[in-house]
Amino acid sequence: MNTRPSPRTVSIGLAGLGNVGAGVVKNLERNRDLIIQRTGCDLRVRRVLVRDPARARDVALPAEALTQRWQDLVEDPQLQIVVELIGGTSTAYDLICAALRAGKVVVTGNKALLAERGQELFALAEQCGVPIFFEAAVAGGIPIIQVLQEGLVGNRILSIHGIINGTCNYILTRMAQAGLSYQEALGEAQQKGYAEADPTLDVSGWDAAHKAIILASLSYGFWIEQSCVRVQGIESIDPLDFKFAARLGYVIKLLSVIRADEQGLVEVRTEPTLLPQGHVLASVSGSYNAVLVNGDVVGETLFYGRGAGQDPTSSSVISDLCEAAMIQAGTLRHSGFVPHGLYGRSKPAGETLSCYYLRLQVDDVPGVLAQVAAQLGRLEIGISSVIQPEDLEDSSGCTPLVLMLDAAPLARMHEALRALEALPCVRAAPSWMRVERLQA
Amino acid sequence: MNTRPSPRTVSIGLAGLGNVGAGVVKNLERNRDLIIQRTGCDLRVRRVLVRDPARARDVALPAEALTQRWQDLVEDPQLQIVVELIGGTSTAYDLICAALRAGKVVVTGNKALLAERGQELFALAEQCGVPIFFEAAVAGGIPIIQVLQEGLVGNRILSIHGIINGTCNYILTRMAQAGLSYQEALGEAQQKGYAEADPTLDVSGWDAAHKAIILASLSYGFWIEQSCVRVQGIESIDPLDFKFAARLGYVIKLLSVIRADEQGLVEVRTEPTLLPQGHVLASVSGSYNAVLVNGDVVGETLFYGRGAGQDPTSSSVISDLCEAAMIQAGTLRHSGFVPHGLYGRSKPAGETLSCYYLRLQVDDVPGVLAQVAAQLGRLEIGISSVIQPEDLEDSSGCTPLVLMLDAAPLARMHEALRALEALPCVRAAPSWMRVERLQA
Repeated sequence: MNTRPSPRTVSIGLAGLGNVGAGVVKNLERNRDLIIQRTGCDLRVRRVLVRDPARARDVALPAEALTQRWQDLVEDPQLQIVVELIGGTSTAYDLICAALRAGKVVVTGNKALLAERGQELFALAEQCGVPIFFEAAVAGGIPIIQVLQEGLVGNRILSIHGIINGTCNYILTRMAQAGLSYQEALGEAQQKGYAEADPTLDVSGWDAAHKAIILASLSYGFWIEQSCVRVQGIESIDPLDFKFAARLGYVIKLLSVIRADEQGLVEVRTEPTLLPQGHVLASVSGSYNAVLVNGDVVGETLFYGRGAGQDPTSSSVISDLCEAAMIQAGTLRHSGFVPHGLYGRSKPAGETLSCYYLRLQVDDVPGVLAQVAAQLGRLEIGISSVIQPEDLEDSSGCTPLVLMLDAAPLARMHEALRALEALPCVRAAPSWMRVERLQA
Repeated sequence: MNTRPSPRTVSIGLAGLGNVGAGVVKNLERNRDLIIQRTGCDLRVRRVLVRDPARARDVALPAEALTQRWQDLVEDPQLQIVVELIGGTSTAYDLICAALRAGKVVVTGNKALLAERGQELFALAEQCGVPIFFEAAVAGGIPIIQVLQEGLVGNRILSIHGIINGTCNYILTRMAQAGLSYQEALGEAQQKGYAEADPTLDVSGWDAAHKAIILASLSYGFWIEQSCVRVQGIESIDPLDFKFAARLGYVIKLLSVIRADEQGLVEVRTEPTLLPQGHVLASVSGSYNAVLVNGDVVGETLFYGRGAGQDPTSSSVISDLCEAAMIQAGTLRHSGFVPHGLYGRSKPAGETLSCYYLRLQVDDVPGVLAQVAAQLGRLEIGISSVIQPEDLEDSSGCTPLVLMLDAAPLARMHEALRALEALPCVRAAPSWMRVERLQA
């Protein structure tokens, strides 16, 4: 079990208790034990900036933790980390600057602020000697910032192609697949919580463009000017264009493209784009995000996952919080294996459950299936389908019998295989494989 | 430009100058400037352990750098990092233990060694106070180790499904798509360099199983015992089974599955498995790898890229080397934006080149296409295809004319759009979008 020193408590000031903020509080609580084991830190949200302290909320926080003054997060010397999830570019800017000056590590998911004033903010962070973490600013739960900063650090980035706005992708997917108009698809997205009441920032393409500016700046080492970025929204796409695109072999996606030419000129654009139907990005549908990075050493790599929403985005905020906490507590472990005593032990292979594919070579005589089914039934292994193709009989009068079997423990399946092989009507060792019934 | 202090030189001892080792030397050289800017470190390979110093090689290293004694890498006090790329579990084990005891950070890509003796090695690393990095041990260029250790640190891992052996995936892809026998597909893989002369470790499933053991151990916080892992190779799959699988709606992949049940029992398996045709893992073909991670907070995320080969694997080794170097040189910067002066500047949007999709509403009279083509020709914009669907004429006698245009700068496309809109035969503002001709 755990033989480590007792965890260091790290105190967090959280600005914003909306969808993502509440997810951070909830998921920190849910996986507290695991996070303590992995980081050596006990992360505690002590102070929360909210607009309306009286509002009912589904996260449990003491009333005295709530405040309407952002300065409270900065002035409290107990707080070591400030998380900015209020959005916008005015109060958020003031808060982050003040927090950095007070020596607090900053975690933010504010893509608009970083795209507009990242250069200033990171210069200030450097000057104050405290980092800004911003994994949640791009592509929700996909750790693409870390991938660019660390995993691909030895690569010159040749290009990035991203579907990085789940709202637009949901709307375009519904227009393409269900033939909805833009207004109908938007209404549906709003109803399902994939689009805001005021969807302008998303559907105008600017949310994705802000993310593209951040990815491009990280890749190319200078802050991209917004004025050089081409941005086009999805509001005026005619349903007719989906039909013509399909006829030509394409789908329509809001695609962000970042690439450098041979002279080092960097192009950053976000706009509805025709993509070949067979391309991996063409199959990214609904509210999912995907980022395809082409590095000069690694080649093409793709990162895919939910791009928005309470849980995925809070996963990224918590990842940043863990690193920030380890820095503040001095428990930052460099790479290596971190054991923890929270999950049990290995499951013996014989106890693992699976569905199975089974192919037998059998005599082509009546009653064979009944004999096979009897052996399986005796071991309580269900049969979900049977194929006995008549066109595949070989010259010896032997035919394949293919069965799909319901879930059974591996040890029992082995027993069934022995029993089947012993049947006189079964000619050869059975051929069998696991079936993994993953959702498509 | 760059105003940072001059880089700290970090000296590396490299064990193994095979395919990946040579890639590390080559790619460190290729992106030296970029790595210096991003890490503050100048990484120099000073000593290289080789089997035969006399062999001709395509990487430029001074003859005196080569040695046949592994102890030379450990005893040289100048070397700060030891990279182990010799494989196997005997000399590699001795070398890593000695390097850790000598206080050198270790980077390794040795999955077999970690799967067998990871527990001991990480305990020794902890005791010696130096880390072991091993990104290259699993899934080549995909930074999956880092993702599990950092990006998803706040997640309880529910399951991992991985296609993590490129050799097997290439062979199975060819058997499925070209109807080859196992022996034919293996021969082709060997000829193309996707399989070794002795392919046993790959085709037996053990290479993938070693990787699965590492991923499972990282996810669940204890070292998985090899004896609890079910491993089945691909050698005995009958081409007939691909046909039946297809008829049932499945493909066959060598799939590694890691998952914990509700009692915390962890199942780790690698075996040929039927996967539904529509699932994202079913479309991972050839020598590519993919890892699908399901975390309790983030949901499903997928990481995809080349799983083996000189360049992808060296990308991961170099990523580890950069972190190791920053630790040894004391230049480890925590997250933030790292500017560098190596790439030029933003490309103005008007200069960016694209192909275009263009839909015009035109009068249904003769000569319309000629007028449109003349305007495009005047601006040197080529037409790659034209569709004028006769079934879509509306009641006003107006029909759509759809054109696919060759690459042109955006500014010139804007000029063409203005010219087309001014034509009397063009009824409404043209509808147009970019076309991204990505390879499928």
